Amino acid sequence: MNYEGYTTFKAEKNDAVLTITFDYPPVNVQGIPMLDDLNRLAESLEGDRGVKVVVFQSAHPEIFVAHADTNFLKDMSTAAVPREKVELLYLQKVLQRISTVPQATIAKIEGFARGGGHEFALACDMRFAARGKAKFMQMEVGMGILPCGGGASRMARLTCLGRALEIILGARDFDADEGEFYGTVNKALDADKIGPYVDELANRIAKFPAESIESCKRAVYASIDLPIDGALREEAYWLYQATSKTPAIKRFTIADERGFQNDMENQRNWNDALIGIQEIQ
Amino acid sequence: MNYEGYTTFKAEKNDAVLTITFDYPPVNVQGIPMLDDLNRLAESLEGDRGVKVVVFQSAHPEIFVAHADTNFLKDMSTAAVPREKVELLYLQKVLQRISTVPQATIAKIEGFARGGGHEFALACDMRFAARGKAKFMQMEVGMGILPCGGGASRMARLTCLGRALEIILGARDFDADEGEFYGTVNKALDADKIGPYVDELANRIAKFPAESIESCKRAVYASIDLPIDGALREEAYWLYQATSKTPAIKRFTIADERGFQNDMENQRNWNDALIGIQEIQ
Amino acid sequence: MNYEGYTTFKAEKNDAVLTITFDYPPVNVQGIPMLDDLNRLAESLEGDRGVKVVVFQSAHPEIFVAHADTNFLKDMSTAAVPREKVELLYLQKVLQRISTVPQATIAKIEGFARGGGHEFALACDMRFAARGKAKFMQMEVGMGILPCGGGASRMARLTCLGRALEIILGARDFDADEGEFYGTVNKALDADKIGPYVDELANRIAKFPAESIESCKRAVYASIDLPIDGALREEAYWLYQATSKTPAIKRFTIADERGFQNDMENQRNWNDALIGIQEIQ
Repeated sequence: MNYEGYTTFKAEKNDAVLTITFDYPPVNVQGIPMLDDLNRLAESLEGDRGVKVVVFQSAHPEIFVAHADTNFLKDMSTAAVPREKVELLYLQKVLQRISTVPQATIAKIEGFARGGGHEFALACDMRFAARGKAKFMQMEVGMGILPCGGGASRMARLTCLGRALEIILGARDFDADEGEFYGTVNKALDADKIGPYVDELANRIAKFPAESIESCKRAVYASIDLPIDGALREEAYWLYQATSKTPAIKRFTIADERGFQNDMENQRNWNDALIGIQEIQ
Repeated sequence: MNYEGYTTFKAEKNDAVLTITFDYPPVNVQGIPMLDDLNRLAESLEGDRGVKVVVFQSAHPEIFVAHADTNFLKDMSTAAVPREKVELLYLQKVLQRISTVPQATIAKIEGFARGGGHEFALACDMRFAARGKAKFMQMEVGMGILPCGGGASRMARLTCLGRALEIILGARDFDADEGEFYGTVNKALDADKIGPYVDELANRIAKFPAESIESCKRAVYASIDLPIDGALREEAYWLYQATSKTPAIKRFTIADERGFQNDMENQRNWNDALIGIQEIQ
Repeated sequence: MNYEGYTTFKAEKNDAVLTITFDYPPVNVQGIPMLDDLNRLAESLEGDRGVKVVVFQSAHPEIFVAHADTNFLKDMSTAAVPREKVELLYLQKVLQRISTVPQATIAKIEGFARGGGHEFALACDMRFAARGKAKFMQMEVGMGILPCGGGASRMARLTCLGRALEIILGARDFDADEGEFYGTVNKALDADKIGPYVDELANRIAKFPAESIESCKRAVYASIDLPIDGALREEAYWLYQATSKTPAIKRFTIADERGFQNDMENQRNWNDALIGIQEIQ
């Protein structure tokens, strides 16, 4: 798969990790060029089993993705639309498409991520933020609208209802530690630690089978949109999707032969042993 | 709109912030008089675009709202009702009506809030609690019932399932810091800080357009009751509800002219700049 | 009710608390014998109003429940099944049955709980973990599958979506404090404190009426599977299920007579007073 020719970011592939570096001066604005790039990226990822993890970062020293472009926002309709005629915005569609690529996606946030920039991060599977650098805000309520890049829809899936309302109604800056405390970022990390931390996590996930990564992701996202009975059925569905394509049975057999079933010493070492077992194909 | 003649609280309006101070000795009990007052308050708020934020507090030095009145609880039916014949309790209906007013609602909790008093707080959009003063408990399981003022329904929307079950099954007192840790309160604050903190937040939100406050609130509440596709459609629906009534397009145009699109210095100042932009109507 | 003859654990009843101690050397593996035992246990609990709380612990000094048995995993189908033909796995069915017993269930975790062992803990109502002893991991993605004992379905009900994905896709060991921080365990406790803490909580809950425990539990689980309107109706339904069988009305009457309605000193003492009121039957 070819990850070239983007206007607003550069793509670099190392083994099964694709690193996307936003680089669209002056502020990595999220306009039509960036949405077109992300849409094309998602299309490529949907058909690529060679990439298993995508890391999003920025080349800008102070900005991740600044915010959505006021120019396309200016073109928004000012007519109230009846519910049955509502169509998703291009911004919503693109970020939802990013959210549902079969790869694991990680946002490494080391600068401002406000409005649509923050909503892009919320559409990734995981978010890590650098202390002293990352800064978040949903300012839309003060502009007269609401977060319309999935932010109003996703916030309470990442923090509780009360804190989602505070973030969106208060429209205040908050930093990495506050994001970690509220749950909108998985973890806050010191600025010199976030790179190695994300590398280690991305490389670990990239060793696992692409089909089990996808199955895990599909089942977890489905789980919060379904009652528990339906969630369990989806879990079983994705289990067989995985076993039909991965060396799972072979791995269980060999794990048993190697003593991972019952040997006590091996229980202590599962964290590393799981990587050793990846050689079994 | 006239906010007068209540039995159990006083209402004071400053610009777009309405402060409700519970004052119903001896313990601000949540009986029919308080529920009638809250129902009438909600009815007024539903039709009032001049109030954008409601802050609930107490005049009592040790109590927010003590608990539901044992007298109306004594009148509850003891007949098991088939599912299809179940009707909501007056308590549930009133607190749900408070939960869905178009304004942003904030509970400032500086004393005991147990049982129905806690459930009232859970029905607000945000909760802040004073260290050393706030104390919470759902004692219903020990009385032979369950939290029936929306508490059993809302707890796991504010903390995770396991902690919701612990709070409701354990029926133990917990304080501001534990509430913050579990997520049932947005933040715990020192007793001398909570007043200024809530004032600042309420006044900030009160500067924003009433219709975007309502749109944000409707979309966030809908988001957790719908699968992601439906949530995104509601988000788009409420976007156009907002743009049809607010000066959003004008604000985007002027924000661009003022350099908020691309100027780096302005990126650093969005938190304050958002207030400056409120003059554009 | 007779709680004897299990292969993989011992059961001990003290008043209304049943303590289940896993004891299946060498590593408390979660195979068919353990699932059969759990299934039989759940069946007994479903019909027993004498047990109100179940505590799960382990006799092994380093292991809670190590993981699911690779032997039954090896027998899993490798054929992709269409959605409409998916059936739940025996593992899923048994853990879901444990999750829905009418009693309050508590996992006291003082050792390794990985894979199916962790998923068993997630199926309990509450989880407490010992610092320096508990260790968690969902390793399934690295084996080529996904957590299929309800783990993919329940994780995001206990922590936010982003952290659920990190746990399941990252497949890394994490400890009691990290579990507490992410919400998968209710609380991390020092190794010498967890016993008394769980005892105190279990004995407190065990004093409350069995029917109100069940009503609370049913309403809270239902609340996250339903929109708020449906959740409130379930809450009302379970309220009358409780009042039809418990001494609730009598307790409200006597609480009022004893001054719990309005007396200020009594407000301060509700936490203990709730136990005193249990004598009223």
